[in-house]
Amino acid sequence: MSRYFSEKFAELEAYVPGEQPKDQQYIKLNTNENAYPPHPAVAEAAAEAAKTLHLYSDPECAEIRKTLAENMGLTPDELIMVNGSDEVLNFAFMAFCDKHTPAVFPDITYGFYPVFARLNQVPFREIPLLENLKVNTAAFRQTAGTIFLANPNAPTGIALSRDEIEEILQTNAYNVVVVDEAYVDFGAESCVPLIREYENLLVTRTFSKSRSLAGGRLGFGAANPELIRDLETIRYSTNPYNLDSMTLAAGKACLEHDSYNTDNCRRIVRTRERTRYAMEKMGFEMTESRTNFLFARHPDVGGEELYRKLKEKGILIRHFNVERIRDYNRISIGTEEQMKAFLQACSEVIGGK
Amino acid sequence: MSRYFSEKFAELEAYVPGEQPKDQQYIKLNTNENAYPPHPAVAEAAAEAAKTLHLYSDPECAEIRKTLAENMGLTPDELIMVNGSDEVLNFAFMAFCDKHTPAVFPDITYGFYPVFARLNQVPFREIPLLENLKVNTAAFRQTAGTIFLANPNAPTGIALSRDEIEEILQTNAYNVVVVDEAYVDFGAESCVPLIREYENLLVTRTFSKSRSLAGGRLGFGAANPELIRDLETIRYSTNPYNLDSMTLAAGKACLEHDSYNTDNCRRIVRTRERTRYAMEKMGFEMTESRTNFLFARHPDVGGEELYRKLKEKGILIRHFNVERIRDYNRISIGTEEQMKAFLQACSEVIGGK
Repeated sequence: MSRYFSEKFAELEAYVPGEQPKDQQYIKLNTNENAYPPHPAVAEAAAEAAKTLHLYSDPECAEIRKTLAENMGLTPDELIMVNGSDEVLNFAFMAFCDKHTPAVFPDITYGFYPVFARLNQVPFREIPLLENLKVNTAAFRQTAGTIFLANPNAPTGIALSRDEIEEILQTNAYNVVVVDEAYVDFGAESCVPLIREYENLLVTRTFSKSRSLAGGRLGFGAANPELIRDLETIRYSTNPYNLDSMTLAAGKACLEHDSYNTDNCRRIVRTRERTRYAMEKMGFEMTESRTNFLFARHPDVGGEELYRKLKEKGILIRHFNVERIRDYNRISIGTEEQMKAFLQACSEVIGGK
Repeated sequence: MSRYFSEKFAELEAYVPGEQPKDQQYIKLNTNENAYPPHPAVAEAAAEAAKTLHLYSDPECAEIRKTLAENMGLTPDELIMVNGSDEVLNFAFMAFCDKHTPAVFPDITYGFYPVFARLNQVPFREIPLLENLKVNTAAFRQTAGTIFLANPNAPTGIALSRDEIEEILQTNAYNVVVVDEAYVDFGAESCVPLIREYENLLVTRTFSKSRSLAGGRLGFGAANPELIRDLETIRYSTNPYNLDSMTLAAGKACLEHDSYNTDNCRRIVRTRERTRYAMEKMGFEMTESRTNFLFARHPDVGGEELYRKLKEKGILIRHFNVERIRDYNRISIGTEEQMKAFLQACSEVIGGK
């Protein structure tokens, strides 16, 4: 920290992304990337856009908002386009939290929420998950704060039903409820159909997971036009050209071939269930994941130990050195071939005990 | 504004980017875009990167930082890569300003500075330009604030010498001085060579202007490693994947063909000087621009009137409805052909008076 760094950030600890070691080639099952590359039309669209990069990208993101609105049965003014859903989550912390309105989220959830709270100097309250690692929905009634719920939750993979979230929306009418649906396309219920009913609902989504665009940095928020306008005020006060022309073109091409993405999601869900079955036979205990990852522990091997031994075998999974979930690892679902290698390596580690 | 919007932003007025009207084709001389498209290698690199967009981009930006460091004679830890230089400017407001350390900048300068100050809830002080629209360097001695200086300044185009900035650095040793060099490659002196001498210096740059990458969203900051680390703490707490793989690849390709960019800058400077000469003959008064735009007024035509009449003729320039500079317009330097059309249209407007 330099002597010029504002003292207000003395306690700020930055988010730590999943490791990307370069010492060797790994089978990367640690950052929940999609196992399959984007549709070939995406590269074509990006190349075409790159020819005119001397011109600014469209700050209104008009074309992709229109395409996405049609895809989702919404209107463009119900959408805000962002540089990965992290950006709109940060905007929500900025717009809807302050010293009078704390952020409220589960104690075990996406690790960026407390970072955003500290970055924006807003108080936050963490509500413990239930013993079975489910979100304690009853404790989210009348929180008097802005609620952030990853649904499905990370890193547990467990989803709430739309009805459960609707109850939270109803009992928090004076505050915004942000539902972070990064993983929803792998089998959970989306709350997007509720945005016209609840003016306090913001749903955030990303193209990183189900649409194979992690490296393209594209996300969006869906809400009633008034909430969207607040977020746009923040976006235009932060970085109006947050999305480059290649990303806008890539995202549009991606939507124009969306059945390709849907098919990939189905394949990933099938691979997930096959992997789960094989892991259960090996003695692993798992949450009921509705995502493109599994969250698992084994009675005979510690979480950190499994992580470390798999890394030695060239397989990266993600371990969180966090109370209550130290025994677990989060395992992204890769291709069938990658998961076979993972299962083989697991059986070697467990067999060796 | 929704009823959920934090009251701290009640006064926030977002930055307004240059208009991008879609009602007809315009000759766009209003957003200081480069007149020439990027090198063809840029599109190739972007297309190649787009094939693996299912994988996250490198949050460390290792490759492009290495290439850029070599290009500039710096080390990678003296650089931070950002989504357009607006992003690193905002990070500087976050990191180096707070309620005890105001932001200080000229009263007429890049319009985003007061927006960033309000967004980050930091006080700011504006120091009036001199009568001739130059920055009042004497008034920047010992400001007790974090200084933001666009050099050359916008929208005047006037540059300070490196010596003048060095004096500001010396008399503000307890505060960071940010030198925003968006336009430096069109004929001004860069302060990058001073970063090893002054630990309070942050230089910001963009690929948008001199490197034809406005639509690619790439900028950077150069400073001593300690300041860079502070800014990286902010970046990793905001959006660690702020740059997508296509932009990283496009920027690297751009640097690998940098003489192409340098040649284009020379062409633009030549066109600027020819345009200036022709405008002077028409009676325009201009500042001494060291940028890819001219800042001009005419004794017989008001600034707003010239802007409006040129728009009717299909030519967009930028008018700022701001005290002291209402008579002026900012005219981006386009191709020779575009500037001929601009001059023709000007002579029609002025001749008609």
